[in-house]
Formats: sequence, structure tokens, C-alpha cells
Amino acid sequence: MSLTDLSGRLALGIDIGGTNTKFGVVNHRGEVLEKGHLRTDEYEKIEVFIEALHRAITPLIEKYGSLELFDGIGVGMPNGNYYTGTAEQAPNLPWKGVIPFADLMKDKFGLRCTVTNDANAAALGEMLFGAARGMKDFIMITLGTGVGSGIVANGSLIYGHDGFAGELGHTIVKPGGRKHWSTGSEGSLEAYASATGIAITAKKMRAEFPSSMLNQYPEEAINSKTVFECASKGDSIAIEVFRYTGQKLGEALANFVMFSSPEAILLFGGVIKAGDFILKPAKLHMERNLFPIFRDKVKLVFSELNEADAAILGASALVWEQKKNNR
Amino acid sequence: MSLTDLSGRLALGIDIGGTNTKFGVVNHRGEVLEKGHLRTDEYEKIEVFIEALHRAITPLIEKYGSLELFDGIGVGMPNGNYYTGTAEQAPNLPWKGVIPFADLMKDKFGLRCTVTNDANAAALGEMLFGAARGMKDFIMITLGTGVGSGIVANGSLIYGHDGFAGELGHTIVKPGGRKHWSTGSEGSLEAYASATGIAITAKKMRAEFPSSMLNQYPEEAINSKTVFECASKGDSIAIEVFRYTGQKLGEALANFVMFSSPEAILLFGGVIKAGDFILKPAKLHMERNLFPIFRDKVKLVFSELNEADAAILGASALVWEQKKNNR
Repeated sequence: MSLTDLSGRLALGIDIGGTNTKFGVVNHRGEVLEKGHLRTDEYEKIEVFIEALHRAITPLIEKYGSLELFDGIGVGMPNGNYYTGTAEQAPNLPWKGVIPFADLMKDKFGLRCTVTNDANAAALGEMLFGAARGMKDFIMITLGTGVGSGIVANGSLIYGHDGFAGELGHTIVKPGGRKHWSTGSEGSLEAYASATGIAITAKKMRAEFPSSMLNQYPEEAINSKTVFECASKGDSIAIEVFRYTGQKLGEALANFVMFSSPEAILLFGGVIKAGDFILKPAKLHMERNLFPIFRDKVKLVFSELNEADAAILGASALVWEQKKNNR
Repeated sequence: MSLTDLSGRLALGIDIGGTNTKFGVVNHRGEVLEKGHLRTDEYEKIEVFIEALHRAITPLIEKYGSLELFDGIGVGMPNGNYYTGTAEQAPNLPWKGVIPFADLMKDKFGLRCTVTNDANAAALGEMLFGAARGMKDFIMITLGTGVGSGIVANGSLIYGHDGFAGELGHTIVKPGGRKHWSTGSEGSLEAYASATGIAITAKKMRAEFPSSMLNQYPEEAINSKTVFECASKGDSIAIEVFRYTGQKLGEALANFVMFSSPEAILLFGGVIKAGDFILKPAKLHMERNLFPIFRDKVKLVFSELNEADAAILGASALVWEQKKNNR
């Protein structure tokens, strides 16, 4: 792609997960022009990680001529803090304590860097380029290894007093319920509706029902993908695993709706591949638990973003959003 | 008070409850200059109610010379909708269906009228004149006959897509729990933490413990006030009633914090007279259920507004807020 094809300016979008980091060059129309990735978990020291990131990204920048074309870097990462540009106490990242991520990036790349958590980045991506275009009030729920969320109200992301707003995966849906493997909390949404939670539910249920197709897999192969395979083949226990997951999700969504009364709730992440197996019970139990004035109003939909690009796109959206705010 | 004492302009604040309606003339410093009240439940027809309101308020307006000094009318009422100016399906009001309240008021008074629910009005009052002065992110919880809420994020009230955001009293804190006497939902915050909920808890607990001081009262005298009297005298069952209430409240507050990460949660309403009997367990269970990054950060405080004036003041704040938005 030649420079003349670029209408407008560029941003770097970086999505940092516990295992992998994805990055890309994005234009202001939300097109991912270049992308790449590296392992997050191979770098014990944050400085070495940023050095490696710089080495991997520099060729992409050079391809477009120079830094001057770039408006900044947007980073989505667990516990990323929009106000301080730090990542704090992120349980899934190799670097402990408070990491001054935005500052380290700025020093290395010479570009302004904006940080937020990965789900907030995804919500921005949906608002600028995806299913939430034109919406001023919506909630994004990411259902992956964990459960994250990004909340938009009055047309802006809610960051809260300290920059950490929107940790809906850690809200309690069943007091005294399933203990979370990492936080120790009891009955959080993440303990049920994440891929990890679904595997736990599936292992429990298959033990109760020896005839379930789920018992044909070894313990370590039980995950949301294999449960989906069994459900697709009509295994009633696998279907029940998703129904139960959808119920817990729906009960939680009802509470979220009564908080911010969104136009839509967008679901995103690997778990949504289960489709209607999860969406239908989620919708049912959301509606059932709503105060009447909220019923039959809220759209419950899947993300529209291309999954391979969504994280990068969402992160890059931070740069455009920041630019808008500074105008 | 002579006209020369008035610095600035005036607003009418009206708080409409199921039983009583309070109204007052408020200046821009948040001083309630005049006030009055009438019964809400004596008026089966909304037109007759507004006629009576007009009759009662006109002398107060005339005392200050003319309508010209007034910037508008702010109304807090159950299910009041900021966007449409209507009250919809309010279970505690005598008028059913969708009431075009703001339009009716405007026609009768000749002043612009802004409507929202009573808890949102209270939150605005706290932000302009009370304990939330200077805060951009806080949640107001009103604990009265019912449980209401007003949520401020990024310095603005969250109204949501349809104007009904912030019905935290109806969020579910205990799935499958106590059935709500009016909505039929199971395990809502209101079912436990409202004055009505506290009376239910007290009646249950005193039946289990014959030695409790609570058994010295007739059934109809059991309410949050008599429970407080018994708790103050050291009755361990009455204390347990508040502890249990505080626990349910605290569990709910933890979920709210993980949604919008507020600087403070303000508690308001008759129930807070129970003071530390409720505040301490609420704080304990809020902290206990928080994701670590939110712990020991959120102030849990009582409203600072004079209770007799707070509702009027909160409603009048709508006029100033509206004025600010139109600037």
C-alpha cells in the first residue's frame, strides 16, 4: 500500500494479553494495515519486553515513512489505567506491582501512549468501528479466559474516580458461590461465564452424568470449544452447561442494565462461539430479572468486529478518542 | 426576606412521593427560602393534583414579585424520566400509565419544567450543595420506604439510553431470595435494605427469638425506627437485623463500585438513622467483596443535606443543572 492510499493519519494499536501481545498499524477508518505479534510470557522484565516490542514494530513504522504520520500508541492491557498510564497488580501479566507502561513506551517510541484495560479498548473499537456505532450508552462484555467489560454512558467510557471502572467480571452473581481460582472471591460472574468457568461447570456436570458425550474427552481437553462440539451434536449435558452459563450471565446483565440502562449489550470473545446455546438463556434470564420499565428494550448482540483485528483496532481507537478529547 | 437579599435567580423544587409532595423556592446558593407541602394520595386525577399544586405554590411565587425571577421548575418523582419529562408506570403514585408531567406543569405554571426520579434529584443536590461537592464520580443510594439511586460519572448524572438509568434498588443481591412485595422479583436490594425490608427481617427474626425486645411491640409497630430503639438498648436481635441489612447492602455496594469506581457512595434517607448499626457491616461486606484494586478507596458516607430540605433542594438543582447544560 503506497502512502497515497492513506487518507488521514495512523495509530499503533497494541493488545497485551497474558500469553500473547498483538500489534498493528491502523488508519483512521479503522483498517488494520499491518500487524504482528509476540509472546508476552517470554519476558520477565518489562524493559526487555518493551525493547522487543520496539524491535518488532519499528519495521512497520518505517514502512510508512516516519513517526510523523503516527498520532500515538493505544494500548489495551489487563488492569491498564487510563488516568495514570500504568498497569497495576495485573494477575495475568508477568510484571508485578505498578508498571508505568505509557511512560516507558513514550520514552522508547517517542510517541504519546494511552493505556486502558483490554475490555475498555474493545468497547471503544465497537463504538468507533463496530456494532455500537452511533450509540451513546452501551456495555461491552468480553467473554474469554476471563470476563472483562467496558461501559459507555453519555457517549464516553466510564473510567471512574481511579481509572479502574468497569470490572464487571468480578461482580458477584451468586453470593457464597463458586470460589474464583485467582481472586478468591465467591460467586463472581467470571467464575461462571469465562471459558475457565465453563470448563469447571462442564467437568462437574459430566461427572454427574456418565452418559454425557463430554466423558469421551480427557480432563485437559474439556474447554468451551469441546463443550460446543458436544452441544452441537445434541448432547443434553453440554447444552445444559451453556444454559447454566447463560443463566448466570443473564442474571448479571439484568443488574448491569438497571445500573446504566444501555441501548445494547455487546458480547465479545471466544465464548460467544457457543452462539444461541448461551445467548438464548442469557436473554431469557436477563429479561426475567429486569425491573419492568427496562424489559424488551435492551439489544443483546454479538460484536461485529473481525476477531483477529478487534483487539488491535480497539487499542488504536484510544488514540483517536484521545485526539477528540484534546480538540 | 426582601428582594434585595436575593443574590441571583430562583428555582422551584418539587419532590413528589407516594404520600406527600413537598415544594419550595430555592436560590442559586442552595438556600430553601420558602416551603410547603400537600398530600399526593388525595388526588386521583393528575390534572386536579397539578391544579392544587399551582394553587399552593402561586402565593410563594407572588411573594418574590413575579415569574420572571424564576429559571424553572425541577421535579423529583418516582420513575420520572429526564428525557421525556414523563412519569411512567410508577407503582407508588396514584396516576397510572404514562403521565406527561413536565408538559402539564409547563402549561399550568408557564415555566420550563425538568423531571427526573427522586434519587437522581437527590444526587444532583449532593453534587451542587452537599457531601459530593467537587466530586465527578459518586453514587447516591436513598434508603427509605424503597431503595433508589442516582449515579454520577464523569461529572454527569447517568440517565442511560431511555432516561431510566440508576434503579439500583431493583438489582438482585440474592438470586432466588426474598420476593419483592410489589415487583415480584426475588432477592432485590430493596427487598432487604429498604425500611419495608428491614421490618420484614425484624418480624422474621423476632419470631425466631422470643427473648428479643422486639417482641414487646405489636406487629404494626415493627419498623426501622423501633428496631433502632431496641438496638440502641443493646437488644442483640435488633442489632442482628441491622447487621444482616448492612451485609446485603454492602454486598450490593461492592458490585456497584466494580461498575463505576466512584470516589464515594453517599447514603441518604430514613434508614440511615440506624447509623453505625448499618454502616459498619455495610462497609465490611463491601470491602470483602471488592476486587483488590478497589479496596480501601471508596468513601462510604451519609448525606450532608438537611433532611427536611434535601428533596426540594435536589429537585431545584435540576433547574441549575439544566441551565448549565444549555449555556
